[in-house]
Amino acid sequence: MLKGKDILSAAQFSLDELNTIMDTADRYEKRVKDGDVIRDLEGLLVATLFFEPSTRTRLSFEAAAGRLGAGVISVAEAASSAAAKGESLPDTVRTVDGYVDVIVIRHPAEGSAQVAADYARNPVINAGDGAGQHPTQALLDVYTIRKEKGTLGEQTVAFVGDLKFGRTVHSLAYLMALYRNKMVFVSPPSLQMPADITADLRARGATIEETEDMEEALAASDIVYVTRIQKERFDDLSEYEKVRGSYVIDRAAVERAKPGITVMHPLPRVDEIASDVDDYAGAAYFRQAHNGLYVRMALLALIMGRA
Amino acid sequence: MLKGKDILSAAQFSLDELNTIMDTADRYEKRVKDGDVIRDLEGLLVATLFFEPSTRTRLSFEAAAGRLGAGVISVAEAASSAAAKGESLPDTVRTVDGYVDVIVIRHPAEGSAQVAADYARNPVINAGDGAGQHPTQALLDVYTIRKEKGTLGEQTVAFVGDLKFGRTVHSLAYLMALYRNKMVFVSPPSLQMPADITADLRARGATIEETEDMEEALAASDIVYVTRIQKERFDDLSEYEKVRGSYVIDRAAVERAKPGITVMHPLPRVDEIASDVDDYAGAAYFRQAHNGLYVRMALLALIMGRA
Amino acid sequence: MLKGKDILSAAQFSLDELNTIMDTADRYEKRVKDGDVIRDLEGLLVATLFFEPSTRTRLSFEAAAGRLGAGVISVAEAASSAAAKGESLPDTVRTVDGYVDVIVIRHPAEGSAQVAADYARNPVINAGDGAGQHPTQALLDVYTIRKEKGTLGEQTVAFVGDLKFGRTVHSLAYLMALYRNKMVFVSPPSLQMPADITADLRARGATIEETEDMEEALAASDIVYVTRIQKERFDDLSEYEKVRGSYVIDRAAVERAKPGITVMHPLPRVDEIASDVDDYAGAAYFRQAHNGLYVRMALLALIMGRA
Repeated sequence: MLKGKDILSAAQFSLDELNTIMDTADRYEKRVKDGDVIRDLEGLLVATLFFEPSTRTRLSFEAAAGRLGAGVISVAEAASSAAAKGESLPDTVRTVDGYVDVIVIRHPAEGSAQVAADYARNPVINAGDGAGQHPTQALLDVYTIRKEKGTLGEQTVAFVGDLKFGRTVHSLAYLMALYRNKMVFVSPPSLQMPADITADLRARGATIEETEDMEEALAASDIVYVTRIQKERFDDLSEYEKVRGSYVIDRAAVERAKPGITVMHPLPRVDEIASDVDDYAGAAYFRQAHNGLYVRMALLALIMGRA
Repeated sequence: MLKGKDILSAAQFSLDELNTIMDTADRYEKRVKDGDVIRDLEGLLVATLFFEPSTRTRLSFEAAAGRLGAGVISVAEAASSAAAKGESLPDTVRTVDGYVDVIVIRHPAEGSAQVAADYARNPVINAGDGAGQHPTQALLDVYTIRKEKGTLGEQTVAFVGDLKFGRTVHSLAYLMALYRNKMVFVSPPSLQMPADITADLRARGATIEETEDMEEALAASDIVYVTRIQKERFDDLSEYEKVRGSYVIDRAAVERAKPGITVMHPLPRVDEIASDVDDYAGAAYFRQAHNGLYVRMALLALIMGRA
Repeated sequence: MLKGKDILSAAQFSLDELNTIMDTADRYEKRVKDGDVIRDLEGLLVATLFFEPSTRTRLSFEAAAGRLGAGVISVAEAASSAAAKGESLPDTVRTVDGYVDVIVIRHPAEGSAQVAADYARNPVINAGDGAGQHPTQALLDVYTIRKEKGTLGEQTVAFVGDLKFGRTVHSLAYLMALYRNKMVFVSPPSLQMPADITADLRARGATIEETEDMEEALAASDIVYVTRIQKERFDDLSEYEKVRGSYVIDRAAVERAKPGITVMHPLPRVDEIASDVDDYAGAAYFRQAHNGLYVRMALLALIMGRA
């Protein structure tokens, strides 16, 4: 059902499509772990155009292509790109489009993935367009919740940290609303979830609470999704230091939380999750990163019509 | 006939060799478009050594290798290269030569590809050596003309822009002379085709006209090959601004040109072809870029003796 | 016997393991030179994480993976890495570990490869950890001696140059001691082999001489292993200039050396071996570099249990 489609936004998927992606990812995860030699994309080529560095996402897409038997051509550095010679994005995309079967693009400008899709005849996957979308992150988050919890609904999910600028949490919140979970947004007042998003989610039937109190939220949540609070968002550094300290998850915080709580993070983390949480059974953030491989394999195979 | 040969200069090919390359490229184009899984270079390795960035050319060679089933190892950044530690080009080449089956090299120094070929036992392909040669560009230009026009002879080709420093147009002019086409060189006086090249081409029997008047030239030409006029070539910036304005191809210029004129450009373009030309049927520059894939597949397969 | 093991230090190998690696490398060398299409690692993925540039080593590992049919994902530039966003090495390693089957890592911090191995479930190969170890270099050096001399014992090996900071010579000296060769350490007083290493080697039964006189040492040696003397090691530049001049191997030095002497160098060289030595039959340094391919193929295949 996704054959030939562009993957531009987390909001584009129907529930049916989401389920197909999850089921396909499941199947690939099993096959990879069984040591199968998978050649579903044999003979195909994927371009990874990263006009902004992102090791994790690029490596994950390239590993997904490799695990499927596809070849990869890659631009990992904006500085080495045609863009440095003044070429427009549409021209770069139209050129590369003639070399490969699918284009994965990361670009600092919001809307750039849509531009790429407008000019490419082959499918385009948005791997992050600035403040815009990063749909494969949202998909792997959902896949992780399904695997960790055995279900995608009836969960209470706390989102903690920078909810204002974090595109990751915006996308995930929309998908969680689809599956009728309850959401608790935990942040300092200056980094609250934008009011229009909260309103929109409520209009779609979502149950939402907002609070500054992380401890209380964690005591009632099945899942906590943590994001980094970035220093550069604050004019007043003392404000930053205060806020940062109150939204750190350490082992003690986990012990006070609802038993069995699942801890997620899009990574890289700096110090918002203490390393003493790493061996807690519910610490899912590395499994979450690994899930990116299977979800991206599923997407590549589905849009190529080879899953 | 090309097995084991280095590809260093557009001038090295006999007509027989050119025809073999074109025919082989044709065959690969058909197979790629048919979705064939091509494994003619299975088990072989290609090194792409780019001591100077060139996304388009590097990606095109790596895609060609990938489409043929070969592996690729790559240096995309001079900064990360052994050269940064003071290693000589012959030493770098002799080392990499032991890892792979063919070396593709781009280097800012004229003559560097010849140096690489002198020290490598495996075939070397010149992907641009500074002000020197860029033979695969000339080959894909010729391949494009053959495809767009259905023939390689009896055409009038206008070359527009910087004809003094443009190595691309020098190489192409020699090949066009081989096929007995008429050429019109259109440039400001300060960027004319060097007199020795013009004389040499005439000595080989070529029919050549020189003019500053682009409109007149286009009215009589079957093909126009546009190159960028670079600001840094001018001491006097007002001179640059004047010249640049008079050698822009826009839709209006195409309407006044000979009907059916084919518009080519080696890319990247900046503003010497207006974007309103992009959907003109004769705008061949993106097809031209795509043809690089097939021509490079043909070259790789031919020099490996596997075409 | 090496299946699933990390490769962290040249000192970790038993004689049995060393012999297995050498024999396996021999077999792969033969198959590569016969043009065999080798697919022993078909379906597997190798990550090359180079947090410090090293073209030669990275390309050699990627070529080894490619020659075995494995896929590669790569970080060639620290600047583009997650580290630039403040991620810790353990986090980066735990993430990539979920994408691939084996991790090759080069990192400027001594001990970093051990850290990587502690956090990865898949095998880790140390491709150089700052002032620490570079075990695959030592292995290819030993492999080269075995091939050039037809034996690994009963040789007199002169080590020339910077013996104080050269991790390459430290590792090789330990392996040479294992095989009961005689060693002559030739260096200026300020760059002598550290006394603790010399004492340790002697305690293991090695016969060692130390001298400043290169000519005398070469007259008695079967092999000379040359390393670069780096300017930045000297406070007094005139001291550097004096020393540097006295440890250059040129054709004249080779003529005065023991007949048939084998000249080795880990590369890149700058001017410590003159180019007039390059066509001397015993100049083994480029063959030595090429041997890195076969030794790394052997290691990858052995730790994957697929040799």
